[in-house]
Order: sequence, then structure tokens, then C-alpha cells
Amino acid sequence: MERFLNLETVKYVGKLVRVCGWVDSRRDHGGIVFLDLKDRSGILQVVASPDLAKDIKEEYVLEVEGEVQRRPMKMINPELETGQIELKAKNIKILAKAASLPFDLKDLKLSLPVLLDWRPLTLRNKKIKAIFKIQEEVISGFRKTLKDLEFTEFESPMIVPATAEGGAEVFHIDYYDYDAYLTQSPQLYKQILVPVFERVFSVNRVFRAEPSVTTRHLAEYISLDIEMGFINSWEELMDMCEILFRNMFSEIEKNCQKELKIWGATLPKIGKKIPRLKMREAQEIIFKRTGIDHRKEIDLEPEDEKEICQFSKEKYGSELIFITHYPTKKRPFYTYPDPEDPEYTLSFDLLCRGLEIVTGGQRIHEYEKLIKNIKKWGNKPKNFAFYLQAFKYGMPPEGGFALGAERIVKQILGLENIREASLFPRDMERIDQRLSAFKTRRKKSKK
Amino acid sequence: MERFLNLETVKYVGKLVRVCGWVDSRRDHGGIVFLDLKDRSGILQVVASPDLAKDIKEEYVLEVEGEVQRRPMKMINPELETGQIELKAKNIKILAKAASLPFDLKDLKLSLPVLLDWRPLTLRNKKIKAIFKIQEEVISGFRKTLKDLEFTEFESPMIVPATAEGGAEVFHIDYYDYDAYLTQSPQLYKQILVPVFERVFSVNRVFRAEPSVTTRHLAEYISLDIEMGFINSWEELMDMCEILFRNMFSEIEKNCQKELKIWGATLPKIGKKIPRLKMREAQEIIFKRTGIDHRKEIDLEPEDEKEICQFSKEKYGSELIFITHYPTKKRPFYTYPDPEDPEYTLSFDLLCRGLEIVTGGQRIHEYEKLIKNIKKWGNKPKNFAFYLQAFKYGMPPEGGFALGAERIVKQILGLENIREASLFPRDMERIDQRLSAFKTRRKKSKK
Repeated sequence: MERFLNLETVKYVGKLVRVCGWVDSRRDHGGIVFLDLKDRSGILQVVASPDLAKDIKEEYVLEVEGEVQRRPMKMINPELETGQIELKAKNIKILAKAASLPFDLKDLKLSLPVLLDWRPLTLRNKKIKAIFKIQEEVISGFRKTLKDLEFTEFESPMIVPATAEGGAEVFHIDYYDYDAYLTQSPQLYKQILVPVFERVFSVNRVFRAEPSVTTRHLAEYISLDIEMGFINSWEELMDMCEILFRNMFSEIEKNCQKELKIWGATLPKIGKKIPRLKMREAQEIIFKRTGIDHRKEIDLEPEDEKEICQFSKEKYGSELIFITHYPTKKRPFYTYPDPEDPEYTLSFDLLCRGLEIVTGGQRIHEYEKLIKNIKKWGNKPKNFAFYLQAFKYGMPPEGGFALGAERIVKQILGLENIREASLFPRDMERIDQRLSAFKTRRKKSKK
Repeated sequence: MERFLNLETVKYVGKLVRVCGWVDSRRDHGGIVFLDLKDRSGILQVVASPDLAKDIKEEYVLEVEGEVQRRPMKMINPELETGQIELKAKNIKILAKAASLPFDLKDLKLSLPVLLDWRPLTLRNKKIKAIFKIQEEVISGFRKTLKDLEFTEFESPMIVPATAEGGAEVFHIDYYDYDAYLTQSPQLYKQILVPVFERVFSVNRVFRAEPSVTTRHLAEYISLDIEMGFINSWEELMDMCEILFRNMFSEIEKNCQKELKIWGATLPKIGKKIPRLKMREAQEIIFKRTGIDHRKEIDLEPEDEKEICQFSKEKYGSELIFITHYPTKKRPFYTYPDPEDPEYTLSFDLLCRGLEIVTGGQRIHEYEKLIKNIKKWGNKPKNFAFYLQAFKYGMPPEGGFALGAERIVKQILGLENIREASLFPRDMERIDQRLSAFKTRRKKSKK
């Protein structure tokens, strides 16, 4: 007999069907056993005799043949899509057994490290699983919007040469007889592709050897990258970013009602237009509101980001806000200086509910100017010869930005820690299992 | 004035428009200059006075204002989407200059290494660019088909622990104070997710430290991965794979006519059904056809793969063929042995025009059996404790497969070398630039 999905059975009252799934729960009531069976479509109540359901426990994998029947009136569950019906089991086959669960999988009361130690199992929890439905929709809303706007999707490399970047926050790879690194950003590649495709985007994995453990950083994370040529003004980049977030949020609104409800979450409000404030203006406002004087700082502190988001929500009804004109010395060599005040750049961050979720800006597209800046930043132009080809042979005014996928999910659902938004988070203490449990500590001398 | 795309101008004959793009070619004819301007939509002929077009060379980036007008009858170019019209330039602004091209960008006669040395520039060539349109469609056809079939897309990690895999073909990473590796496959993660989402897929980057340079291998490549639970038989995996290729090819057929034409390529024929042959049967057929006796070999040689594809095309009209039942000792520990003959596995490869483009099979889903096999393969179950959680708590019969995206593109277009199908190919001799040019050779002792 063909397999039916749990949700499909509602159309087959009175018919014999075969379903497959995991036991989400078992309840024994006066000579009858109720099994909630879950599959990819949802949950179905199976009613079985104690004999048929003998030994069956949570997470057992079953194949059940039975008759779909209407539930008695008082048993109807309006919360459930299959709440009007149940399956009267005629035959149950155990496809796989499950060991006794080490904790209540439906009501997890574990610390984050323990949740992650048990990730393959805890991911089966409905609430945790919902996080990754949201993540999937963030990425697919990003992709859909950009394809509609004639962007070309490309695959950026993960292994980058020793010459491209540097610094302590890069992971080193033994690459045959050479040194190489894990990419920190597809920046150089997306710029190279502007003269090829004009508008490009990419769903990337990027890597940062963050030397500390925070609630906002991952060693490996998903970067959603955009780059576009022929901008008339760098403000077009923020316009594009705003379009993107409106579309992404509306896709999530449309497709993730169930998941938002499980988390009691609402999408961040955007209001009529995302406000745009210069970093110095933001510091001034923060000073006026709180008395804390960060007006000489060259970046916003995490508490500043929270405060300015609060301000934006109160004044503009927007939980997103662009902060612009970060100081030139805080940004990479390719960032376009503001012609009106070259101490600052034509760059922006997008903050959402107190956290930076996007960074971007206009890039230097003039070949000579770029070479000058590479030198000014202490690098050698010959190390960037590959990248510079793109500029030597005609690069239009261009810019772009990058979204942190896990951060967006974290802010939408109000997660406490970014690790919750990564299926298999990597940090300085963990790759799947805790690193301290491994006997693979490197020799210090190799570092 | 708003910018028009080149292709849009055909609707505005007699109107003043502004377009932007790169000079694809310049032709001077009796006091008139013809500039072919390319943008992301296509090519538009610009007619300018020598004065207006002064100094303008190929790959210059221009902004042109002018009037759209019909071409004189004898100038109509039916090959071009804008071949009925041209733009009479009133104003030309140079947005960026380009240095003199080091070779003819429209008619590249360079060896592959030189093409790759100049990748940022040579990617602008129409024929090379077309490769990546095909790649984009392969990936998007894969994704579209699987989303329609209720698969969940997930993001698999690239950094894997020291315990997961091993062997000489793995790239080592200095991971804080520990050893880690670049993933060779999302295999363990996609299996872990079967009890979470039932059906999953993923677009991955995977890494193989291939110790030699061939035309079929890359150090970093795109793996399109699938895993699905509740299979009734491992043959369902091949059914799914066939559906996938029919859909992917039909998407490419629909969206890439121009690109296929540039390459003079036709999509591989599938026929009524992709034939399925056991590896031993294939060797027997090859022996009968060629007299070459590989009947005792434990795998197909590259020339065997070519020969059996030739056979399939002649006998079944299919340029794709499944080869099944590879020997148990040739496959990884998680591969399901054939219950009828445990020396062989319920595994398959899909060959296309002489090259393997898919590998897959049923997996061992029984916890105890899997532990036994991990030991048999010389590994320690405790090193797989994380992965084993998925099996300990209820795993249905399941299987999956992986497609090599660059190989599929190579076979569709008939490319000679897999590097041509990778935007920025990495191999033992190259990361963007040739490694031999770097002064970053590692000390041998570190290896």
C-alpha cells in the first residue's frame, strides 16, 4: 500500500491507509493506547490496542496501517491540523527502536551546552526545529528577491590564498605544500564578478577565528552577500537592503506562522522607511538620552546599538535602523571615503533590535585610488594583483553589503545566543562535541 | 534620467534614454563610431561621432544618453535582440577607463592555465560566462525540484572534527588549539537530519586534497546532497535521482537556450528510463565489447565508464546510466550491504557521457549494525558518538546521494577540464594565482 503523509489522511475518512513516522508521545488510557505519530507533514493520533502497541516508546519509528475515522466530538483537538480524525491501527510495524530518552524531548530544560552536546536528538524538538524553518525562509526570501531583481547567484570559494587577508582571526589551512586560509568574506570575489554579471549575490559560509566566546559570534557562519554595479549613489544600496528586508519578512510572515507562534515572536517592525543616521549623530542622540558620552569613540558599542534601536522604535516606529558614515580607519581598504569628509566612509550597518545584522557600503572602483589605499592600509598591491585585474579593465561605481543569516534569525525569534540559530555551531570550545573531550590538542609550537 | 537596460530600449524608439555598460567592441566607419555596449541584459549598438567617442576603447565603462532609433534596413542584425535598433549618442560619460587588453577578449586563444591566471578578465568572455549561467541553473533546478518534493534545505558545516574522517586526502585546519579538517562530504550531517526533517537537501562546498592533477578533480567543489527517510527500497533513490535529472535538464532547456547554442551543446539524452546495471554486469558487457577483461576489478576504470556509457547510448538511447552494487570493501562503513550478497552494496553511481556525476545508496539505519561496521572499518564508535545519537533514538530506513555540480556542467557542455566549470578553481597548483609564484611554501617538517 502506498504511504500517506499524516496530513493527507484527513481526506480519507473511512479508508484504509498506511502512514510512517516517529512516536511523539504515548498515552495509555483504559485499555486503549494513543500514539501521536509525527512525520514531515505533521502529527496524527493513532489509536491502538495495548497488544498492538506493546513495548512501543517515544521516538520509535513505526509503519501503521489502519482506518481513518472521525474522532468522538469531545476528543476533537482544534489545535491540530488532524485534530478532527484519528487512525484506528490494524497493524503496526516497528521500523526502528529508540533507546530510552535521556530527557523529556518535548519540554527541554537543559542548558545550551547540554542542548548542543545532544544536538542530533534535541533538533527533533518542535521549538528548536522551528528555528531552522525560519533560517531556511530567510535564505530563500533573500534568494527569491534578488533573482527577481536580476541578480546572478554565484558560488564563492572557501579556500583563499595566503596573500588575500591576514590577521589573528583567520583559520590557517595546510594546503598541500603551501599556506592557505578559510575565507572571512567573499568580498574580493563578489567585486571581481561585477564586471561579469553586474549584479551578483551569494549564500556563503565564512569563518572567523574569534578569540573569545560571545553570544553574537560563531567561528563558522552564513553570510548572505550582495554586490551591484552602476549605482548612482551609495544610498541606493540602503534602498536595496530595505527592499530585501521587507520581502524577506513578508515571506516569513507568509510561510512561518506556525513557527513564529511557537516562539511567541513577531517580525521586527519596519515602519514607513528605515531611518538613516550618521554614526556621530547616533552618538549624540545616545549622549542626550543616557548621559553616556561615546561621542569620541570610533565605533558603536553593543549597548549603543541597543540604545539607538530603542530610539528608532520610539521615534520612527522602526525596529531596524541604518547607521552610516563609520570612520575610515575602522573600515577595510576598499571602502569609499565620503568626498565631503574623507575621515568618514560611505558605509553603513543595519541594526535590528539592538544588533548589527548587515554591513555594507560603496567600494572604491577607481584602479589608481584603490592601489593607493592598499598601500595606505599597509598591504602590497602585487598581493592583490588577481583582484586588481577587475579594476584595471573597467569597473563601474559599485557597492554591496552582507547579511548575517544566524543573526537575523536570532533577532526575529529573540534567541539569547547566536549558537541556537546554527544547526551545528562551531566556536572555540566546540565542533559538535566539546573540544576539551578530544585528545587532539595541537602542539603549541605548531601555532 | 532613469537608467534603461539595453534590452529595454527596443520599446522606446524615438525616445531619449540613458544606458550604462561596458564597451564590447568599437568599430570606426567613415566618420562614425559604432560601439557595442554590453550590460547585464545584453548588447546595444551605440552610434557616436568620433568626437563623442574619442579615446574610448574596449571594456571602458560608459554612461550614454541618446535617442533610440530604428537601424537602416541593411544594418539590421537578426542575431541580436536589439538588432532592429541603435542608440544615437548625444552624450557619453566615461565612468571608468580600461587598460589595453592583453589579448582579444572576444576570441580567446589561451591555454587553460593562462585563462585562469586572468580569470577576473576572461570571465567577461561571453562563452566562459555562459558556463556559469548553466551552473546556476543546475543548482537552481536541483533546489526547485526538491522543494517541490517537500525536502528541507539545510546548511551543513564545513569545519569538521578530527574524529569524523581522516586519510591523506583531507585538508587540515589549525583550529584554535585543536586540529580540525575541511569537510569531505556532509554525509554524517544529512543523515543526522533525517529524523528531524525526514527529507533534506543541501548545496555544499566539499574539499578533497587530491594528491594529483586530473581533468576530473578539484580541491574544492560543489556537492549537491540529498538524504531521505522511509524508503521502501533502495531503488526509490534511483527513481528520485532520475526525476531530479529530468527536471534539471528541462529547466536548463527552458532557461539556457542561448548558452547551449554558444557552446553548440545539447543536453544528455535520457530515453524512456535510465538503465540500471550491476557493476559486474557492466564489466561483463565491456569484456564482450572490447575484449578488455576488468571482471575481477573492484571498481570501474575511467575507460570502463566511457565504454559502458557508449553501450547505454547505443542500446537504450540513454546518455545516463546507473551502475549498481559496488563491492562492500570499496564503499564507506555506512553503506548498506546487499542482503542477498553482502560482498556487494545497495549503492549506485550515475554515469553521464563517460563520467561519474552522482554517488549514492541506502545507508545502514540499524544502530547495532552500524556500530559493528564502524569497528569493522577500523574506527572507534566513541569517535562517532555524536552521529550515532541519530541512530540510537530511532532512524527509519533511509538513503541518499550526492551530485557533483561542476561535473554535470562539464558533461552538459562537453568541457575538457573540470576547472573550466569552476569560477575560481582550487587545485594543488593554484589558488587564484599559481602557488609556485607565492613565497609561502610551508616548511616540510610541519606536514
